[in-house]
Amino acid sequence: MTFALEPERIIRLDADRVVMLDQRRLPDEEVELACRSAAEVADAIRSMAVRGAPAIGIAAAYGYALAVERGEDPAEASALLEAARPTAANLAWALREVRAAPDPMARARELHVEEVDRCRQMSSHAASLLAPGTRALTHCNTGGLATGGQGTALGALREAWARGLLQHVLVDETRPLLQGARLTAWELEAEGIPHTVVADSAAGSLLARGEVHCVLVGADRIAANGDTANKIGTYPLAVVAARHQVPFFVVAPTSTIDPETATGAEIPIEERDPGEVNARFPALNPAFDVTPAELITAIVTERGVHRPPYAETLPREVAA
Amino acid sequence: MTFALEPERIIRLDADRVVMLDQRRLPDEEVELACRSAAEVADAIRSMAVRGAPAIGIAAAYGYALAVERGEDPAEASALLEAARPTAANLAWALREVRAAPDPMARARELHVEEVDRCRQMSSHAASLLAPGTRALTHCNTGGLATGGQGTALGALREAWARGLLQHVLVDETRPLLQGARLTAWELEAEGIPHTVVADSAAGSLLARGEVHCVLVGADRIAANGDTANKIGTYPLAVVAARHQVPFFVVAPTSTIDPETATGAEIPIEERDPGEVNARFPALNPAFDVTPAELITAIVTERGVHRPPYAETLPREVAA
Repeated sequence: MTFALEPERIIRLDADRVVMLDQRRLPDEEVELACRSAAEVADAIRSMAVRGAPAIGIAAAYGYALAVERGEDPAEASALLEAARPTAANLAWALREVRAAPDPMARARELHVEEVDRCRQMSSHAASLLAPGTRALTHCNTGGLATGGQGTALGALREAWARGLLQHVLVDETRPLLQGARLTAWELEAEGIPHTVVADSAAGSLLARGEVHCVLVGADRIAANGDTANKIGTYPLAVVAARHQVPFFVVAPTSTIDPETATGAEIPIEERDPGEVNARFPALNPAFDVTPAELITAIVTERGVHRPPYAETLPREVAA
Repeated sequence: MTFALEPERIIRLDADRVVMLDQRRLPDEEVELACRSAAEVADAIRSMAVRGAPAIGIAAAYGYALAVERGEDPAEASALLEAARPTAANLAWALREVRAAPDPMARARELHVEEVDRCRQMSSHAASLLAPGTRALTHCNTGGLATGGQGTALGALREAWARGLLQHVLVDETRPLLQGARLTAWELEAEGIPHTVVADSAAGSLLARGEVHCVLVGADRIAANGDTANKIGTYPLAVVAARHQVPFFVVAPTSTIDPETATGAEIPIEERDPGEVNARFPALNPAFDVTPAELITAIVTERGVHRPPYAETLPREVAA
């Protein structure tokens, strides 16, 4: 399968810097951002120059490796990077991996290569769930930009397109930062996959009108029971999909599963700057919501398709 | 009850023009728009300089009266105004009223006065449904700007605030045109009512977290069976509210009820310019969705509180 967005274009570790495509400036400009310390990488994660749970894991791993190389205090660098964003399980997981490695730089590069591979595997498993002629709806961005590979939910859609199964992708614009309208649409355009952007609040009536055959989303943290934290707006989408018996698939690497978190109620939800929503009036800006396991048709990881009851079917050996 | 936004400031008929507060430029600028023909009023309605089902009814009535006064062809003026937007029942209803009147100018002014009065009555009925300490969520703008009076759903919240029943209003920003973030927040600020703007997609998790005691919305057309067309995003809100047993109230004048439309499936849904959603990628922009009657706890009009089954309880003598 071809993949227009090369992993090293999304994020890479050069000798003295972590270089990433600055996602805040897409789709208008394709500009690289160079981070020269753990603090600069943490800033890039916090400000969402790089975002998406797997991608911030890779960024943090690269940031840690860079810090060690530069002689920064490793514990301090790790703490700084881990605190950049609270919800994604992959961030802490990737940092544990590089901290435990004799050569953090080699391990960070290996993690990225592994992530590309995991994306390929989960995309293949998830694509096998789709029927020919699928009109899929997705939320936020779960593509190359979010993973450093071909993507999770969007990777599955890429694979489905390559297999001739996909007819069209409906893309929630994903307020307030418009990851759908800016990033997912940009990736789909690059691959020539037919797509239409809609306001988040329009997805409900598209589901009601039978215009959506399935919903695919990524995840930032999956609790041991299958409850899934993902970009704000995922939960209402799952509720409406369930009402119309539209399958709702979560696609994520096993590093997103956190067996230490028993249920969604214990997942910390990041509150971001209200100014991202509204600069003029008081606002609230929760970045994620929790979709209860009962609304999720299947959770697809690189190991395969997991069905309810997730407490029994999810892999347990990761992210702990 | 005081009301900071005077009806004639929202819209009025002067000797040779219809003058309205240009809602496209709020909250940044308070600028009046003067329309000197039926065509100019139709343009103002289409481009949403004036919006909200009751307010566009008043605007159309004023536009028709102005056209007659100027010697325009009355049938042509009426057709032009009625075609400006397809979903709101009040537009056709108001035009029928002024067409049938011996003095259209007097009848148009009277319609506006009656609308102010209807707002007051339905606000009073709806406020009686709220308990002390209410945290309410609302969508779009249903205030003075939408009605020429104190509002429908937002009028009820004003009345609840005056009665000391209201603690806080959560305001959906209402993409793509941000009527909540621009107009509802502006009206609430003017009245000193505590409010918080949220992305439309954040309302779901606020409902799930028990932070919303009831949802109040307006309506653009109510079918004979109670199915209700309202601003896009109303339907998913109603679905999630029902899941959490949060009361969902529709507040609208009887002129919004269209007994000629049997069910929501027959309500024409306006598709607006995709450029309002996204200027860079393909987009879809349905302006309304339909909430089935079964998800609506009560429909409140100036005549009182109507409960299911709406086919039996809704007033029938209007909008036909």
